[in-house]
Amino acid sequence: MKQELDLLFIHAWTLTMQGSGVGFVQDGALGITGNRITAVGESDELLEKYTAKRVIDASGKVLMPGLIDAHIHTGDTLIRGVSQDIHNWMQHGIWPYSQVLRSDLSATLKGSMLNIIEGIKAGTTTFCDFDSPMTSIVQNHIKAGTRARVAEMVNEMPKVKNTAVGELYRFDPDEGREKMRLTRELFSKYNGAENGRITCMLGPQGADMCSLDMLKDIQAMAEEYNTSIHMHVAQGDREIGQMVQRYGKRTIPFLEENGFLNERLIAVHLTEATDEETRFLARSGAGMVLCSGSIGIIDGIVPPAAAFLQESSRLALGSDQAPGNNCNNMFNEMKFTAILNKCKAKDPTVFPADKVLRMATIESARAIGLGDEIGSLEPGKKADVILIDMSHPALSPVILSPIRNIVPNLVYSAKGSEVEMSVIDGKIIMENYRLCTVDEKEAVREAQAAASAMEPLVKEHFKGMEDTPLMQKMKRGEL
Amino acid sequence: MKQELDLLFIHAWTLTMQGSGVGFVQDGALGITGNRITAVGESDELLEKYTAKRVIDASGKVLMPGLIDAHIHTGDTLIRGVSQDIHNWMQHGIWPYSQVLRSDLSATLKGSMLNIIEGIKAGTTTFCDFDSPMTSIVQNHIKAGTRARVAEMVNEMPKVKNTAVGELYRFDPDEGREKMRLTRELFSKYNGAENGRITCMLGPQGADMCSLDMLKDIQAMAEEYNTSIHMHVAQGDREIGQMVQRYGKRTIPFLEENGFLNERLIAVHLTEATDEETRFLARSGAGMVLCSGSIGIIDGIVPPAAAFLQESSRLALGSDQAPGNNCNNMFNEMKFTAILNKCKAKDPTVFPADKVLRMATIESARAIGLGDEIGSLEPGKKADVILIDMSHPALSPVILSPIRNIVPNLVYSAKGSEVEMSVIDGKIIMENYRLCTVDEKEAVREAQAAASAMEPLVKEHFKGMEDTPLMQKMKRGEL
Repeated sequence: MKQELDLLFIHAWTLTMQGSGVGFVQDGALGITGNRITAVGESDELLEKYTAKRVIDASGKVLMPGLIDAHIHTGDTLIRGVSQDIHNWMQHGIWPYSQVLRSDLSATLKGSMLNIIEGIKAGTTTFCDFDSPMTSIVQNHIKAGTRARVAEMVNEMPKVKNTAVGELYRFDPDEGREKMRLTRELFSKYNGAENGRITCMLGPQGADMCSLDMLKDIQAMAEEYNTSIHMHVAQGDREIGQMVQRYGKRTIPFLEENGFLNERLIAVHLTEATDEETRFLARSGAGMVLCSGSIGIIDGIVPPAAAFLQESSRLALGSDQAPGNNCNNMFNEMKFTAILNKCKAKDPTVFPADKVLRMATIESARAIGLGDEIGSLEPGKKADVILIDMSHPALSPVILSPIRNIVPNLVYSAKGSEVEMSVIDGKIIMENYRLCTVDEKEAVREAQAAASAMEPLVKEHFKGMEDTPLMQKMKRGEL
Repeated sequence: MKQELDLLFIHAWTLTMQGSGVGFVQDGALGITGNRITAVGESDELLEKYTAKRVIDASGKVLMPGLIDAHIHTGDTLIRGVSQDIHNWMQHGIWPYSQVLRSDLSATLKGSMLNIIEGIKAGTTTFCDFDSPMTSIVQNHIKAGTRARVAEMVNEMPKVKNTAVGELYRFDPDEGREKMRLTRELFSKYNGAENGRITCMLGPQGADMCSLDMLKDIQAMAEEYNTSIHMHVAQGDREIGQMVQRYGKRTIPFLEENGFLNERLIAVHLTEATDEETRFLARSGAGMVLCSGSIGIIDGIVPPAAAFLQESSRLALGSDQAPGNNCNNMFNEMKFTAILNKCKAKDPTVFPADKVLRMATIESARAIGLGDEIGSLEPGKKADVILIDMSHPALSPVILSPIRNIVPNLVYSAKGSEVEMSVIDGKIIMENYRLCTVDEKEAVREAQAAASAMEPLVKEHFKGMEDTPLMQKMKRGEL
């Protein structure tokens, strides 16, 4: 008698991401029981062995692992697009908006939900959400049904700025203690929650923004919980300046000296890291998150991912924040990663489509410490899969031989809006392009209302900023 | 009594693209009569003066000029995605497919229609289609309702290759005569067709691929018809090598010496042009088409558009061909143009959102010789407009003040799939995301069937190519 599965996909162009390539199966099938993948193979073979409560004919569609967004600040979304095309993106544009947004938790959460919806619709199934207060933001992931590996973003920076530009930050130990308390609360309530769909990481904002004592506490806690440390590393010249001033060394040598360079570390950005420092970090087993879109817009920089790849494959992609990317879409990150690195190397052969697809799936999973759970279609792994309709004009036609065009077209042509179904932890959370767990239209309306309500308050914070570059652009009719 | 318009849009966030910025009107309205814009302004003002056969409430939406794809080869679409991530993209990947595709006019036309549909759905209203045989391909634009400025791509290259790599091409005057005959046929039948929706340009494939005699004929014909010459210029080192070998000078000095550097010229790519040559060409009044996506993928190069802009604003964007971009979507081109140029200059202030939006609308219109007809919303211009729904999660929320986020989010976050309506020449050709002029699903099915039928024929052409880089990628399971 045939074994009964919960869900069985048949006749899909399947990318298992097993092995060193993309693991293509032309007439592929996938069986799911509970929240796990229980069978992967040819359709004929699975149809012979299994029946299922629901069988989905995926003819004309690609079935593949859900995409992993390895670095995202969902709480920033309500101020999407308010600052770019300038120097000092943060001070001249984000800051006045951020002051208002971050004093309104309800608005922050509405933006976060909007961002999660945006990600799901573009095929993201796992979000490494790096934000604060995470005990609240994580509720959105619980509700939306997304896999989330979350960190409370912590630092020891005083609430009121007490130093001038270029001066060494004076830390506020009370601030640090409060943020570590939030971290402990997050771990105790949510690490492993929702049957393991939610897991927690440690989240120091940067080595320059926490005292060494605090960093040591973080390190101990990461050992205690056997989890990752997700941290901005070498993210700007200001950070490097602080580190040299405080410790007499740049960030990466400092982290090495203090025992942070190992497989627990997820080093985000490396914008200011030299190729040599990057290779050194890669050899230690640490992972890297490359945010091609946001760093391209904000800094005009292509981070040293090519140097990282010389030593390690633990390279993941992240979409960062909505203000300064300005989207959170892993198809966008894959295409930018490929083309920006080709142009940096002046070589069209680097960062090929298959490699960047791996960076958004299996290699990302390994970098963020979930390599045994997600990132590829293998029996025993969690059932996070997406279905992409290849009959959209921009993905057509599908050519199977002698050269197959599916993977190049997913990386270089897909926009995310072709993802028609998303299954996370065995549960269908999007079907026929519609979310099943949250009301998209209502979430958009609520986010819009909260953003509109912020406008008068933000105006107050712009007093004295009438001649900043963005305000000049407004006056010139460029926005 | 109020004057009756055919179509009146009200309550739209309107980008007229008038003046030097984006011409934003917060509660904007636009009236259309026949194929022309007859009124632009505030909603109150237009509602007071006009009624209309159909009034469209565009609340929550952006109304703006349709996008211009200033360089596209629609005939190549059926082989989308068969060649990238390698050197010698053309010889090692495209060539065997092209041999089969281009010997089957029906397949070529099905691909072309697919490409036109892709473009319309992403907001393109004008296509500078550079292909052959254009007398056939232009029928797709007539049927789809798109504005097309078309050129028969001509050269004097013999049908059977008669020279080794690096040797000077031997031209075939018979071939040239036949192609000029096709050009004359195109002009006589289609220049100004469809009430002016179709116009023709001259289309030499490159200065290296036509004899000087043929180039002189082309020049004379451009004068005779008072139209543009659309030409690949400095598109590769092979071209430059041919020019130096034949004439003792590089392409741009050669064009200058022979009277081609003026407002008639639309110079495409400039991949191999020096900054100095580019500035020289810009000063002459010639336009440039920048194909950021395709040149990034194919060559890993960011063309010298920044140098061009030092001297001229006649810079347009183009999507080139589906094999080697791999999409034809002006939102993709805008975002890549901004970010690639920021990274080339290591400066986030260059190529700001408003500027690249102009490059896809008004500045493009001027570069391709249609500056008086399209590219901005002004009374008297042709009615080519698109409506973009800003309630898509990735474009939300809309913030109006103190900093407006609409234009940055259109350039850095929109994917094209948010375009809900398209009006070309006063006629609605897409409404509620559905094409009104062609059957999209049927066109996709036909293109897929034609592509699948090509597979066995293409295999024949791959004989002896088993060890080329793409075939190796197939063997390694990377595709």
